[in-house]
Amino acid sequence: MDLERLISVARGDEPADLVLNNGQVVDMICGEIYPTAIAVAEGHIAGLGEGYQGAEVVDLRGRYVCPGFIDAHVHMESSLVRPREFARAVVRCGVTTVVSNPHEIANVLGVEGIRFLLRDSRNAPLEILFTIPSCVPATHLATSGARLTRQDIRLLLQEPGLVGLGEVMDFQGVVSGDRRLLGEIEICRGLPIDGHCPGLSGRKLNAYTVAGINSEHECTRVEEAREKLRKGMKIFIREGSVARNLKVLLPLITPHNERWLCFCTDDRRLSDILEEGSVDHLVRMAIAGGVPPFMALRMATLNPAEHFRLYDRGLIAPGRRADLVVFRDLNEPRAERVYYQGVLVAESGTGVRGEPVAVDERYEGTVGNTMHVNWSGVDFRIPVEGKRIRVIGVVEDQLITESIVMEPLIKNGFAESDPARDLLKIAVIERHRASGNVGLGFVKGVGLKHGAMAGTVAHDHHNLIVLGADDLSMMAAAEAVVAVGGGMAVTAGGTILARLPLPIAGLMSDMPLEVVSERTAALADAVKKLGSTLKDPFMTMSFLGLEVIPCLKLTDLGLVDVNRQKIVPLFTI
Amino acid sequence: MDLERLISVARGDEPADLVLNNGQVVDMICGEIYPTAIAVAEGHIAGLGEGYQGAEVVDLRGRYVCPGFIDAHVHMESSLVRPREFARAVVRCGVTTVVSNPHEIANVLGVEGIRFLLRDSRNAPLEILFTIPSCVPATHLATSGARLTRQDIRLLLQEPGLVGLGEVMDFQGVVSGDRRLLGEIEICRGLPIDGHCPGLSGRKLNAYTVAGINSEHECTRVEEAREKLRKGMKIFIREGSVARNLKVLLPLITPHNERWLCFCTDDRRLSDILEEGSVDHLVRMAIAGGVPPFMALRMATLNPAEHFRLYDRGLIAPGRRADLVVFRDLNEPRAERVYYQGVLVAESGTGVRGEPVAVDERYEGTVGNTMHVNWSGVDFRIPVEGKRIRVIGVVEDQLITESIVMEPLIKNGFAESDPARDLLKIAVIERHRASGNVGLGFVKGVGLKHGAMAGTVAHDHHNLIVLGADDLSMMAAAEAVVAVGGGMAVTAGGTILARLPLPIAGLMSDMPLEVVSERTAALADAVKKLGSTLKDPFMTMSFLGLEVIPCLKLTDLGLVDVNRQKIVPLFTI
Repeated sequence: MDLERLISVARGDEPADLVLNNGQVVDMICGEIYPTAIAVAEGHIAGLGEGYQGAEVVDLRGRYVCPGFIDAHVHMESSLVRPREFARAVVRCGVTTVVSNPHEIANVLGVEGIRFLLRDSRNAPLEILFTIPSCVPATHLATSGARLTRQDIRLLLQEPGLVGLGEVMDFQGVVSGDRRLLGEIEICRGLPIDGHCPGLSGRKLNAYTVAGINSEHECTRVEEAREKLRKGMKIFIREGSVARNLKVLLPLITPHNERWLCFCTDDRRLSDILEEGSVDHLVRMAIAGGVPPFMALRMATLNPAEHFRLYDRGLIAPGRRADLVVFRDLNEPRAERVYYQGVLVAESGTGVRGEPVAVDERYEGTVGNTMHVNWSGVDFRIPVEGKRIRVIGVVEDQLITESIVMEPLIKNGFAESDPARDLLKIAVIERHRASGNVGLGFVKGVGLKHGAMAGTVAHDHHNLIVLGADDLSMMAAAEAVVAVGGGMAVTAGGTILARLPLPIAGLMSDMPLEVVSERTAALADAVKKLGSTLKDPFMTMSFLGLEVIPCLKLTDLGLVDVNRQKIVPLFTI
Repeated sequence: MDLERLISVARGDEPADLVLNNGQVVDMICGEIYPTAIAVAEGHIAGLGEGYQGAEVVDLRGRYVCPGFIDAHVHMESSLVRPREFARAVVRCGVTTVVSNPHEIANVLGVEGIRFLLRDSRNAPLEILFTIPSCVPATHLATSGARLTRQDIRLLLQEPGLVGLGEVMDFQGVVSGDRRLLGEIEICRGLPIDGHCPGLSGRKLNAYTVAGINSEHECTRVEEAREKLRKGMKIFIREGSVARNLKVLLPLITPHNERWLCFCTDDRRLSDILEEGSVDHLVRMAIAGGVPPFMALRMATLNPAEHFRLYDRGLIAPGRRADLVVFRDLNEPRAERVYYQGVLVAESGTGVRGEPVAVDERYEGTVGNTMHVNWSGVDFRIPVEGKRIRVIGVVEDQLITESIVMEPLIKNGFAESDPARDLLKIAVIERHRASGNVGLGFVKGVGLKHGAMAGTVAHDHHNLIVLGADDLSMMAAAEAVVAVGGGMAVTAGGTILARLPLPIAGLMSDMPLEVVSERTAALADAVKKLGSTLKDPFMTMSFLGLEVIPCLKLTDLGLVDVNRQKIVPLFTI
């Protein structure tokens, strides 16, 4: 940036690169709307006011202009596309900055995976910032593909674009004073440190926040959020694809505490981004729910900018980056034009910069080679060892599960899937080190009548997770996924009904988002035809292995009682 | 800080160092008041909630507790006492952090002066942070004692306690793209950079703010402040001793923009601190003027903490520093108890920590040796060179002056003071380099009937400024000040009526604040007896040499037309 030129443009002595005339600026500080021209130079806002000359002049015809949206917390991997494609999807929503936590790929590939995302994020039509994943691996109750050491964290922190420590999920570890965790936190002292402590309160919450953890996106109740605000945490109100907390949390928002609130999407599937939107969808939902537009917009712009100390954005003011969203209806902001650093990057919901990834554009090294399954250890048969079994109970739209006790269907001394009672077998096959580990269990609430589904997206260890109505279909699904370097598949008997290859770490496609969108829809269709009534069975399945969210989960090491942080036997009394 | 112990205390497994029971916490985020105990350990807040055990337990009997106050912008030198004594004065007001700009001592002694303040600030009963003075010297229109180079700024920025760049007073220089100034600003890019641009607006304000200058404390009108808010500047509402802007700016404050507002005292004399208070006085004034207590308190706590990125304070929340103010009346907060990092430092308006400076405790090196006057050049006679003269017109309670044209009183071919018309001679004697420079002029509005006053506090160059009803008194006053290594004196004829030595850089006393307070009162009494009706003639005089605030000022180089940034002759047509 040439500051001398920028000042000269601001004075009016040199023409701007771009002048937006006849806009109505939403003033994020004063909560006013006022008509003004905006002069842009060097990618920054040079001046507000009439009479500026510019190389390009655009007439906004009275439309509103606000700063570009910022997603305070997102896992890009959940979109199943690589960062540049993710960027294409969200920039048309007016998102010009995302703070992403690459902890999915970090659990598969460690620092190497993070560096792939960093590389792929360059030259995207928006800024992709990163928090450094903490708790990789999440616990010792699963086998992950990589471990991030304190030294890794220290080195990553030196890189541009890394803005803090990612969600500290092992809240029990912090509360109990776990030294490894405190070491990670000490390295990031004074920086944004994202929290993740669903339901934590009282003295335990004191102990968690005293460590310096200063945001939280896992609130599901207003009272929970209020206590966390009191204890100094910024609340990121989340509306993901599975975890949808915005409506419940709307009563939390007041003019007093709004500055301490941001929006985030966390885990959002591509189809939801394409159909509903990204952070802009949360803004519209909040306004529809009674939040004044100015406050809703501030939660998507200035507040996350301040939280992540991005002092160069979040406002339409001289010297700030020219990240701008132009829209028509203050009560339903929908990006008509999006400028990123002064360049038009989206118009009428379509990206104008950032071409689809060419299929032949490859990713390098081990990033494309992460499926290591020892098939000799894979056997889905479950010999009966008792009368009753612990069953994972799916709770739709939630990451938590219930722990149910049922009697299994028994055939020939083996416990079997029983679709009639919606009792399906589930397996987690270790896929990073070919250890041969396989965890086995049962799940209720998925609804498959026959067939099976498998995927290598399984938070946070991302082993190969498979569930189904019979062992044959399950084996076919697992093999179908491994054959393409990771991905998702739906099978019935030996037939593959639908498949999406995710060869990048077993998490992301190498295809353009349009293709991934179609294939994902085909997967959903196939699962639906097999009888599931879940909104997104693959996303639901991907959280059934997450051993840090209560109550009962399955990893390659077995069933996990999350509250006790212990492996428990499948059979019980 | 032992984080493991802090977490253990937060859990309730170890006793706290201090527990404050039965307090009512003012929640700076939610704008609520709620009863809770506060557990303190390691100088930090360990937990909120009942039932904590502590080595010391205090019953607050229902009193309110808020975070320690933060003064967003102050020149400690204006209190005329050294930092540790200044700290004793303001900590009893509930101030636990000040952001001070040491640009007075920097203009006299450069980096060496700043380092003296840094040393003297250690172990004070509150935290004294510093911005790095920019624009030292302010302009080329006066002779200062030192120059801060870009290299000095770069080095100072590495030191703990330096939080940003001090007020960029040469706003014309920024607007015109002055490279030296832009160089200073570039070094501090992304940090807090304080502004100082009274009255600037429109494209010039665009040019000033585009450089990254992000706060302003010179607003004197609501409309001016509104435009500056729109352009992204935080507004520090100032209530100094001379410049008093709070009442005028009260209508500015709304629930929307309040987060962008802070309080500051800028230049406050010791007697005003002792009688009215510091930032607490501004809080009370704002509440009395209709600002909700919660908002007024936030402007004195959380807002400046956020602005200066002091994420360890500004809230009563786990992990934040235990800087606390206990008070009884929400509508008139007055510190009954003040805790700094968990230690009681003031009670009932009296400091309990920080003993008075022992008189024999010395300051080192050149800090105590800054008076270098070439007396051979000092001659107050003004030969007549025209019929009319430019006269500096004092505007009470303002830093600006008027430029008046009058006919001088002429005797024997010399222009003389004419107390009958309140027309007094004024001189600025260079005192850093013994150059022999003397600037001469006239001032109206001070009101001395006879005698003279002199001082080495003369913003920003801090040369020896003297004004009076006759040359003999003026010379006696000047000599009286130089004889004690700098200071202030009032004389009548050859008699010294009152004197305050300021041997530290000619700016600060080496005596306890109680002594300085008495001596300052004696000076004021003496000037009053000589006929002045000004509230604080010495502070008023100290700004008559400040060549960056309109309209007409006097330096050792002569009369300065501030708007034109030119030396102008005393005689005019």
